[in-house]
Amino acid sequence: MTDTDTETKVEAAESAALELANVEAADRSAALEAIADAIDDHREDVIAVNDEDVEAAEELLEAGEYTQALVDRLKVDDAKVDSIVEMVESVAAMDDPLGETLEARHLDDDLDLYKVAVPIGVIGTVFESRPDALVQIAALALKSGNAVILKGGSEASESNRELFELIREAAQEIDAIPEGWVQLIEAREAVDTVLEMDEHIDLLMPRGSSAFVSYVQDNTQIPVLGHTEGVCHVFVDSEADLAEAEDVAFDAKVQYPAVCNAVETLLVHEAVAEDFLPEMADRYAAAGVELRGDERTREILVDADVDVNEATDEDWRTEYGDLILSIKVVDSLVDAIDHVNENGSKHTESILTEDDAKARTFMTGVDAASVFHNASTRFADGYRYGLGAEVGISTGKIHARGPVGLDGLTTYKYYLEGDGHLVASYAGEDALPFSHEGFDGEW
Amino acid sequence: MTDTDTETKVEAAESAALELANVEAADRSAALEAIADAIDDHREDVIAVNDEDVEAAEELLEAGEYTQALVDRLKVDDAKVDSIVEMVESVAAMDDPLGETLEARHLDDDLDLYKVAVPIGVIGTVFESRPDALVQIAALALKSGNAVILKGGSEASESNRELFELIREAAQEIDAIPEGWVQLIEAREAVDTVLEMDEHIDLLMPRGSSAFVSYVQDNTQIPVLGHTEGVCHVFVDSEADLAEAEDVAFDAKVQYPAVCNAVETLLVHEAVAEDFLPEMADRYAAAGVELRGDERTREILVDADVDVNEATDEDWRTEYGDLILSIKVVDSLVDAIDHVNENGSKHTESILTEDDAKARTFMTGVDAASVFHNASTRFADGYRYGLGAEVGISTGKIHARGPVGLDGLTTYKYYLEGDGHLVASYAGEDALPFSHEGFDGEW
Repeated sequence: MTDTDTETKVEAAESAALELANVEAADRSAALEAIADAIDDHREDVIAVNDEDVEAAEELLEAGEYTQALVDRLKVDDAKVDSIVEMVESVAAMDDPLGETLEARHLDDDLDLYKVAVPIGVIGTVFESRPDALVQIAALALKSGNAVILKGGSEASESNRELFELIREAAQEIDAIPEGWVQLIEAREAVDTVLEMDEHIDLLMPRGSSAFVSYVQDNTQIPVLGHTEGVCHVFVDSEADLAEAEDVAFDAKVQYPAVCNAVETLLVHEAVAEDFLPEMADRYAAAGVELRGDERTREILVDADVDVNEATDEDWRTEYGDLILSIKVVDSLVDAIDHVNENGSKHTESILTEDDAKARTFMTGVDAASVFHNASTRFADGYRYGLGAEVGISTGKIHARGPVGLDGLTTYKYYLEGDGHLVASYAGEDALPFSHEGFDGEW
Repeated sequence: MTDTDTETKVEAAESAALELANVEAADRSAALEAIADAIDDHREDVIAVNDEDVEAAEELLEAGEYTQALVDRLKVDDAKVDSIVEMVESVAAMDDPLGETLEARHLDDDLDLYKVAVPIGVIGTVFESRPDALVQIAALALKSGNAVILKGGSEASESNRELFELIREAAQEIDAIPEGWVQLIEAREAVDTVLEMDEHIDLLMPRGSSAFVSYVQDNTQIPVLGHTEGVCHVFVDSEADLAEAEDVAFDAKVQYPAVCNAVETLLVHEAVAEDFLPEMADRYAAAGVELRGDERTREILVDADVDVNEATDEDWRTEYGDLILSIKVVDSLVDAIDHVNENGSKHTESILTEDDAKARTFMTGVDAASVFHNASTRFADGYRYGLGAEVGISTGKIHARGPVGLDGLTTYKYYLEGDGHLVASYAGEDALPFSHEGFDGEW
């Protein structure tokens, strides 16, 4: 594939985006139903083609160049096809994110302003080696009226090509859907071409490693929706219910350590550290969690039956994504807040305390997308938040923050309906006044 | 000024931002009142210091290196001080943009999620040589709880320093306002330091020339809110009320040609071009507008009493910002839409027609922040839209689009209130269900 190929694809998507923005909700949903049916009907083909990817991955696994977990994520069997089909159907059934009049305002007689939800345009995505990721992203883009450039992991290339063709062809069954709204690119070099096409692509959604997301952010002028890392904290305050705190701190680390909303550093108020840490450390150790503590933590746990390595400054800024936890004893609520603001990644933070005033101080003082009181950091997730499908998680503050639902793929447009109105009438000595009164109305 | 100086200032702003985010609305408004009073009370000083800037500019004017219009914009007299003081008072009186609970949702018993408006954090601004711009930007930042880095035009440096000190000192009269929330940088090199500090600055708002805004966008990883250019169109459809169209097309070009929402290209449907263009051209010519037409326009106007230069491809993409207008005759509504999408800058577009269906096709088919029906493009403005103060105009689609009000300086934060809730309870075989029911509630 040459750059020209990629450019042609992106330009085709851009041109389709203008049409897709005006396709009725019913047609977009019908296309999603057609996609679900096509994947359901061609499940044998999908599974057969996926076998090729899995076999290639297993060879890499034997050569020690791949992990079993990655092979498992790549695998598509009957149950996986069922879940993909169900996911597409659930996206089809979601409320339409487009066309809603967000605000309507009279400016003057017969001069009415409407702010209306519209698609963003062309979305570029690069995602991990899970064939279901391709289908999910394409479905969310179609639902929200956006054209989409898909780049999946090379390990899933056969599966991706099969699923992409099924999606492309099935959507064409609905006349209103423009050709070209979905594009697959495959070469690694094509990603760099995409990053340069800021005149044609409106938003990038990279998924995968922090290093990769950072690479994208550093190499493009296109706005990026993504999260680079999740260095999340749980702070056990002096007023915490310690039994409850133990359960929450355990859940936040152990329930699923590989994800971005798992806790990486446990902060413990010095007033409760001696009561809290020994039992907590035993429980972590029993679950296979490696502990890294500051000096006070190590002193408290010196006689305990667990090993506690020395935490370095590097540890406070590290997303382990694994059964490793750093622990620090802090002198006060303010010290906890300072530690989080200095070392956190603005993702998700939690305070465990029965003192509501202290909770509020922590929650307003910590700069993060999600801040919790007496709950596990693992709740930071679009599905758990009730946002419907999760488009991604953002650690940026602009446009969308934290777990992002379908409305993260929309923007708005102002429509003004006049009757020959001139600005000259509203300027100078005899300027007419504006009404600016809001009203309930749909454009 | 060295880079270290700039870095120190930005870091001080970052640290102040965390505090300012939690300052009560009443204290922020009181600080704005104090600023208004300080400028009012020190008006003699402001005017005296401004005289120095104006004298220096007048020397440049005599040397032919400056224009009278720029000198006029720089000038601060008693009336200008009045308008600055009024502006600050009106910002103080605006509704508080912070703290509002945008959404509240039960996830389960005693597990409630709140989405709350919060400041963005640290905003970097670079603006033109108008001393009132500095005060306006600082006032909007303070109102919205954001720390702000100010860089004004060097021609206004004396005035900027005076106004900055008045603002800084007046705000300190309110105990709750943290020091450091407002910072002035002066050297041109300091801008490049600011562009590199993406770990410390959350949003950039450059104002001024398109070339400068593009320079900023190309040289930073910080999100940029700004507009590069306004290549706006008026399309006179075959079903237009031609008398009304003449007034609107005139207003859109002549009422204030220097601004971004003035029309640059007039598109005329071929069915009405012969009726419409001769009289329209006379009226433009009488107002001193230079016309540049495509071949058909020039043919129609060949016997008219006005000169029409030949429009090149370059003209279709040019923001003149002056009494110059390009004119093109198009065959159809679709051709008009295509021309706009190919050449426009996604700023503001207007269709003039009595046919509502054609209006809708144009409005939904054109990709721009604002699309008007039977109204002058000059209405695209935060004040006219009723957004209160205008923070800026965005030609990007992410975060904020078109005229941006105070809420463009806010983002949101998710607060979750639990009672020791674990994600493990909502996973696996016996997973508890989520309620996800919205409710009316303030965090």
